[in-house]
Amino acid sequence: MERMDQNMPFLLRYENVAWYEAGKVRILDRRVFPAEVRFVECEDYREVVQAIADMVTQSAGPYTAVGMGMALAAWQVRGLPEEKQTAFLKEAAFDLAHARPTTANRYGQITFRAAKLAEEALKAGGDPVQAIVDSTVASLNRRYRTMQTVGDRLAELIPQGGSILTQCFGETIIGTVIRAARAQGKDFRVWCAETRPYLQGARLTSSCFAEMGFETAVLTDNMVAYAMQHEGIDVYTSAADSIALDGHIANKVGSFQIAILANHFGIPYYVTGIPDRDKPTKDQIVIEMRDPEQVLNYRGIRNCLPAVRAIYPSFDVVPPHLISGIVTDRGVYVPWLVGRYFDGGEKEFY
Amino acid sequence: MERMDQNMPFLLRYENVAWYEAGKVRILDRRVFPAEVRFVECEDYREVVQAIADMVTQSAGPYTAVGMGMALAAWQVRGLPEEKQTAFLKEAAFDLAHARPTTANRYGQITFRAAKLAEEALKAGGDPVQAIVDSTVASLNRRYRTMQTVGDRLAELIPQGGSILTQCFGETIIGTVIRAARAQGKDFRVWCAETRPYLQGARLTSSCFAEMGFETAVLTDNMVAYAMQHEGIDVYTSAADSIALDGHIANKVGSFQIAILANHFGIPYYVTGIPDRDKPTKDQIVIEMRDPEQVLNYRGIRNCLPAVRAIYPSFDVVPPHLISGIVTDRGVYVPWLVGRYFDGGEKEFY
Repeated sequence: MERMDQNMPFLLRYENVAWYEAGKVRILDRRVFPAEVRFVECEDYREVVQAIADMVTQSAGPYTAVGMGMALAAWQVRGLPEEKQTAFLKEAAFDLAHARPTTANRYGQITFRAAKLAEEALKAGGDPVQAIVDSTVASLNRRYRTMQTVGDRLAELIPQGGSILTQCFGETIIGTVIRAARAQGKDFRVWCAETRPYLQGARLTSSCFAEMGFETAVLTDNMVAYAMQHEGIDVYTSAADSIALDGHIANKVGSFQIAILANHFGIPYYVTGIPDRDKPTKDQIVIEMRDPEQVLNYRGIRNCLPAVRAIYPSFDVVPPHLISGIVTDRGVYVPWLVGRYFDGGEKEFY
Repeated sequence: MERMDQNMPFLLRYENVAWYEAGKVRILDRRVFPAEVRFVECEDYREVVQAIADMVTQSAGPYTAVGMGMALAAWQVRGLPEEKQTAFLKEAAFDLAHARPTTANRYGQITFRAAKLAEEALKAGGDPVQAIVDSTVASLNRRYRTMQTVGDRLAELIPQGGSILTQCFGETIIGTVIRAARAQGKDFRVWCAETRPYLQGARLTSSCFAEMGFETAVLTDNMVAYAMQHEGIDVYTSAADSIALDGHIANKVGSFQIAILANHFGIPYYVTGIPDRDKPTKDQIVIEMRDPEQVLNYRGIRNCLPAVRAIYPSFDVVPPHLISGIVTDRGVYVPWLVGRYFDGGEKEFY
């Protein structure tokens, strides 16, 4: 358990992401953290699908959750005839992969591998549940190892004593850049744009940085230009839910407008992550439109009259001309040339 | 009561702004509207100051509230020796004017005139309370008459069947542009950016337009670039809490970044209002920094860990190169040349 050893923020500790144990997956409910520390317990993999769709966990959380959901699915059909088990697991792999459309490719890599491992374990007379749990933990560790290189590179790009602005909650890069900053003896201030409607920036990102001792401040999403003008922001950085090989990236809605603002003020924008081999261009990026009720309400209180409508695009797409560099484990790429990442060969990441 | 006759939205009816009657000022609490319709009752003018500072009413609401607060102050000292009354009213005029720093000049025009009128009424053996109420109502009607010309001009700039984007709650222009649109037979869609932390766009602006039958939708503040890219917005428009004669304007925080985004997408940005004669340049604009707790909390629930800080600038300043035109009762000005407004002579507005 590499991450627990490293004194990571509470949110990033293994047991708080999504964990299978004895027929249950427990997922920290990020929708109410840090006001409340509450876990959602799933006894059916479909509840894991629902939890991801409902954003009980998000960012990289679902990568672990879909793996652990597959372990739960395997447990649900233990003892049934082998072909029933494998059929059920394929169905579960599909359902879990499609919990959210924008990242279905990434989730699917994890779930279909799990289904295959379970099938192999069954054939070999082993325990499919344990095989999937082990594979999910291995995948988590692999991602953290790869992303640590990204975190190291990002930390190098932040001036000592400077300020970064980020938005939403790019979980793995936050964990690894904190570790990198400590290793490099680097300190910086962190500005978190609140990220309505769900407040990931205000609640999750700020919690991680503040807990680890960084000077951390929150802005509402309409204060970004003000902060860039008055607060000396050196670097804007975000993760990406999708990195197409033509240099377009998709990330939490708002990433696009902050990129335009950074460009206006001459602030570099560094995107972190691993490109999506299966997305040659932005045309393969699917923007998930979520329930507009989230925008019309807040914590159960409706803000607007019944006649008022809303839209809730989860993500927006940032074009390459607004990105200064894409920081990967294989180097910092000019966005237009990020397809060259695969000149270094394939990479198993998820 | 001109405005009540015109079938105005609930929020803009006289009795719902701030009204003096029988030793009390009643102010509709805009902080909870439309979820709740609740009035704050003030029996001391200092409670009116506090209500304005606490944003029980805002936008143009305080123009009426400071006038009615002066009537309340006059009532509080009724029957005292004349010099005690006039001294108290001067103090009240100062306190009410300074309820919020960015608009102290505008509030002060109203309150010091009220103090003077009260003094004259006392000398003439009249009723200072009634003199102030009458003057406040006259001022409200004068503003509406002037702003109706502005509303007419703005409506002309919106394409038939088009879409406008606005932010926060520019109350008088909303009332007058709605009336102008009806007179011109013009229909348009309205996109309201939510305007955190206080949600004036989501709660107040959307309520007025939706109530009057316009197709109205809300965006969170981080969805503006997405909407400009995907939803066909024709015009961005806002009121201004301050219009300096060098073409810089101050308005609700977020106005600046939406102006940058509009510029990026080639969408015209029209500012409405009357220039501030006493602000030759942006250097005379004071940005009110409000309590950051509003940013850290929402409806009484804290979003962030205790170590996390925040800033809450109420306003930001938009430079003239990001404004397409300043729409006034005397014409649409090139922002750089808005000082020419006073070539048409002085104007009593507040």
